[in-house]
Amino acid sequence: MARSKDGGRYRMSATPAIVMAEIFAVAAITLMLVSVLHFRGGFSLKSNNVVRLFNAHLVFMLFGPIIFTGQAIMAFKTVPGRRKVRKIVHMLFNLLGIFLGALGLLAIFRFYKQSGWSPNLHSLHSWTGIGVMGLYVIQFFLGFTFFLFPGAKKNMRTDMKPWHAFLGLTIFILAIFTSGTGLIERFRFLQLLKGREALLLNFTGIAIVLFGLSVVLSVILP
Amino acid sequence: MARSKDGGRYRMSATPAIVMAEIFAVAAITLMLVSVLHFRGGFSLKSNNVVRLFNAHLVFMLFGPIIFTGQAIMAFKTVPGRRKVRKIVHMLFNLLGIFLGALGLLAIFRFYKQSGWSPNLHSLHSWTGIGVMGLYVIQFFLGFTFFLFPGAKKNMRTDMKPWHAFLGLTIFILAIFTSGTGLIERFRFLQLLKGREALLLNFTGIAIVLFGLSVVLSVILP
Repeated sequence: MARSKDGGRYRMSATPAIVMAEIFAVAAITLMLVSVLHFRGGFSLKSNNVVRLFNAHLVFMLFGPIIFTGQAIMAFKTVPGRRKVRKIVHMLFNLLGIFLGALGLLAIFRFYKQSGWSPNLHSLHSWTGIGVMGLYVIQFFLGFTFFLFPGAKKNMRTDMKPWHAFLGLTIFILAIFTSGTGLIERFRFLQLLKGREALLLNFTGIAIVLFGLSVVLSVILP
Repeated sequence: MARSKDGGRYRMSATPAIVMAEIFAVAAITLMLVSVLHFRGGFSLKSNNVVRLFNAHLVFMLFGPIIFTGQAIMAFKTVPGRRKVRKIVHMLFNLLGIFLGALGLLAIFRFYKQSGWSPNLHSLHSWTGIGVMGLYVIQFFLGFTFFLFPGAKKNMRTDMKPWHAFLGLTIFILAIFTSGTGLIERFRFLQLLKGREALLLNFTGIAIVLFGLSVVLSVILP
């Protein structure tokens, strides 16, 4: 997708976009950790404290389907070495993304079970969240079969490649969409309006959106 | 953006994506209107009823920065005739998108004023919403100056074109992100969990996301 159909070009390399992506990744992680560790007592998957379980959902989902998935997408431009090496790094980052996403799901299901709260899977956040994770797993197996498994034919790979990239970016953007709905739910649930914690949450959302934008730009730029 | 850098092609035309986009547009509009007209007493910009003011925000924002903006993006493929005609239709749809978006803002500011509710502009929804509208206006004037105003030089247009398309798609996707956060806020505010109204809201969100996906796909496909 480096050129538009009519030959117009972006007269810029991908490097600044990658640098911006890493800056926004660090920003999002820092803001999230301050919010969770300083204001809400940390996070744990094995806690009897429901707040810490909920926080584990936030932290794992930020790192998994967003930060590491973004790193996986950028790996073809950030990792030095042969194409084969880049593909394996891309695969490993995605595996980590799925694994942390699964832990994030586990955390929120445990939260619902322990808190005895409202029935789960009723909000748009949960719907798109489950959708993202389902598509991510499917995409991973398709990608593995077509691009890493030695059996796939060369012309089949060429046919699949733009669709693999399109579906991958779609999953990534849908994960960011889902994080936005999640952050808003947290904002309303904690009844924040002003103050440092409200600003932390909102700026986490903005950092995630700008991270996503930078990652997509790094794919498009040569 | 019709081809990937390495020459891989999507072996599919844009037509099915455009058809899907129009189906999801009709679905989103229908679900939203049922939700607002049947369950919540309609919408009006000039109402003393704060609920109807709030509903006007929902309806105008769906039609403006989402539906008409999507139509504007697709206009280069849906409108028959010369390129000049398509450009003018693209511009007019965007003008309508901005105009309805401005009415949507007016509705929500009136709602806050009349309801005497929490101070406005404190949530991530409001931040990205104001960001979308600001960028949209800037993008409109840049687009008008470079692509419709006769003075702009040919090579300047060629340089600007991919960036215009990228920024335009970014604004459109950010509008969809913002609609997701807005729908979740409504879901929580109305304390929905199950039932028809909850399903209506969630399916509106899903229809909007699929509309966005189809519009982006229609741009990428030849």
